[in-house]
Amino acid sequence: MKSSYLKRREKVRQKLTEEKLDALLVSYPTNRFYLSGFELHDGQCNESSGHILIQKNGKDILFTDSRFYEAAKSLWDKENIIIYSNQLEDIRAFLKDTVHGKIGFESKIISHHFYEHLSQGMNFEPCNGLIEELRVIKDETEIQALKDSVALNHQLFAWLPSIFETGKSETDLALEIEFFFRKHGATENSFPPIVAINKHAARPHHIPDPNTKLIENCHILIDVGARYHGYCSDQTRTFWFGKTIDPRFQSMLEQVQEAQQEAIKILAPGVLCSEAHLTACKIFEKYGVEKAFTHSLGHGVGLDTHEEPRLSLRSKRLLQPNMIVTVEPGLYYGDYGGIRWEYMVRITEDGCEVL
Amino acid sequence: MKSSYLKRREKVRQKLTEEKLDALLVSYPTNRFYLSGFELHDGQCNESSGHILIQKNGKDILFTDSRFYEAAKSLWDKENIIIYSNQLEDIRAFLKDTVHGKIGFESKIISHHFYEHLSQGMNFEPCNGLIEELRVIKDETEIQALKDSVALNHQLFAWLPSIFETGKSETDLALEIEFFFRKHGATENSFPPIVAINKHAARPHHIPDPNTKLIENCHILIDVGARYHGYCSDQTRTFWFGKTIDPRFQSMLEQVQEAQQEAIKILAPGVLCSEAHLTACKIFEKYGVEKAFTHSLGHGVGLDTHEEPRLSLRSKRLLQPNMIVTVEPGLYYGDYGGIRWEYMVRITEDGCEVL
Repeated sequence: MKSSYLKRREKVRQKLTEEKLDALLVSYPTNRFYLSGFELHDGQCNESSGHILIQKNGKDILFTDSRFYEAAKSLWDKENIIIYSNQLEDIRAFLKDTVHGKIGFESKIISHHFYEHLSQGMNFEPCNGLIEELRVIKDETEIQALKDSVALNHQLFAWLPSIFETGKSETDLALEIEFFFRKHGATENSFPPIVAINKHAARPHHIPDPNTKLIENCHILIDVGARYHGYCSDQTRTFWFGKTIDPRFQSMLEQVQEAQQEAIKILAPGVLCSEAHLTACKIFEKYGVEKAFTHSLGHGVGLDTHEEPRLSLRSKRLLQPNMIVTVEPGLYYGDYGGIRWEYMVRITEDGCEVL
Repeated sequence: MKSSYLKRREKVRQKLTEEKLDALLVSYPTNRFYLSGFELHDGQCNESSGHILIQKNGKDILFTDSRFYEAAKSLWDKENIIIYSNQLEDIRAFLKDTVHGKIGFESKIISHHFYEHLSQGMNFEPCNGLIEELRVIKDETEIQALKDSVALNHQLFAWLPSIFETGKSETDLALEIEFFFRKHGATENSFPPIVAINKHAARPHHIPDPNTKLIENCHILIDVGARYHGYCSDQTRTFWFGKTIDPRFQSMLEQVQEAQQEAIKILAPGVLCSEAHLTACKIFEKYGVEKAFTHSLGHGVGLDTHEEPRLSLRSKRLLQPNMIVTVEPGLYYGDYGGIRWEYMVRITEDGCEVL
């Protein structure tokens, strides 16, 4: 595996030449992990576990603090690990001594403060999305990991209705879902589980509530994912619980599923991401409900739950083989609730496959 | 609760006058939550759930995207919520139209890119730690929440030895710990559980490994915390598993516990944070093992697991009543393993109490 990380870094090195950079400082956790296998997460959003420096001269450096030294050694040549006690000052001193030329940095990740103090007297240049651009096309190992991850998600949704029971709260269900994933080998949720009953389902990112419980005849939106073999799954279903399906629910569900199916039909290499979003919108317009679809159609998924490409109105990107995206139209009404239905889809050579 | 958030914002407003600011843009998730109850987390580190603008004129704004509109409405006056479709442009347009004067921003949180584009033609000023400064002294509600949170953590450690069993892996134990917390009302881990057997315990932030299992006569370091009533707990114990305690383990444990006890003895209002760290170091020096203590003695804990004050060599801060800190000395040897022992401690009017 060490060599596959090196291969990825060699690709970055090629890009450095194209971008006329002498080095690139990689700070975004999943980019760092993608290039090294080192620490998928930062401790907190304001607390880095480390940075990687990719250099044109081939000497790649892993900067981290003493807590991670043992972990770093198992992945990285010892002589190229720098343990900082003052993160900013120690990285700065190294760069000033060692790198003579232009240093790219992830300006969308690095804080303004960090940049201001790190860069003084050096030649820094914002360089965003370079690693993400590599990550957007999944390689074979990644596709397999993502397939395994979605498979576990399907298993969850097949089992899920069997645990629905009057009186169970959103929180109870979220917990059972998480346990299911973990017992089957997932390492964590890929994002906090969304379990939303009735009106709560109008909040696309609802936080499960211990006081809201399943009652006979309600709808329940479940949007969950797990990290499995390192990669994230992300799927949504909206269920009716009870014997008497509300016709409003039924017709909303049909509209959402039609929008999803029509959007999936057009996914293929060369198609504009915005076109996929617009295809779903058109179905909703046909029913006059387009205002109730309040987010984009979908997003790439991989080491992060949300990554490129975005299936959004604004995205001018063209789809390419082995991009993996979610397709998740939804309709939301504050006074009623919401429905979303989400699949993960791989772009193939001539179309796409639902995973 | 809405009114207690308002009270906190009024305190911030007072600070604005002292700092000669007309407004403050709050972007750090737990700061945002502390002032509003809105979204404790960002979706991902590169994906904000929203920002709060505190204005001297009393009109506070919540910026977020459409996914969070329903959640926002339940916490914030509708007319002061701004839903952006383009986060950067829409916040920028609002600030440019509305705020005439100096705008503080969290330069250690806001990315360089965001700042560069947001600030053009406006008067922005880095303003870090203003909210954190309020948060460092816990109010009564917070102390109660933290006490409840630690109580659950004690309950966990009392129960934990009963599940130790040959053949159980680090991952198995981490999962059982998490389930225990969640079944008892915690909403999440406050940080990824650290369960480390033998040599793995030399990595202060070890990630549990499914292939490393309890064997007769080994040591196991467990550092875990849960979020309960919104607040984080954080405690570590290192256990011997088996009948024959290794004398090396025993003596390391005694050194660590002595360092912890001596450090706790001196904690009181007016004491330098660095002094607490040094007290532990001195004990380790007595045994000639100071090099094996590779991190700081402790840190504040609250809505974040790691917050101010830091009990570190560099911290020039004085302790004050109702700060809550961890005290967690440790000794780590790459070829053997590690021991850490951690309590949470509240600074009282004339000393401290172990929670």
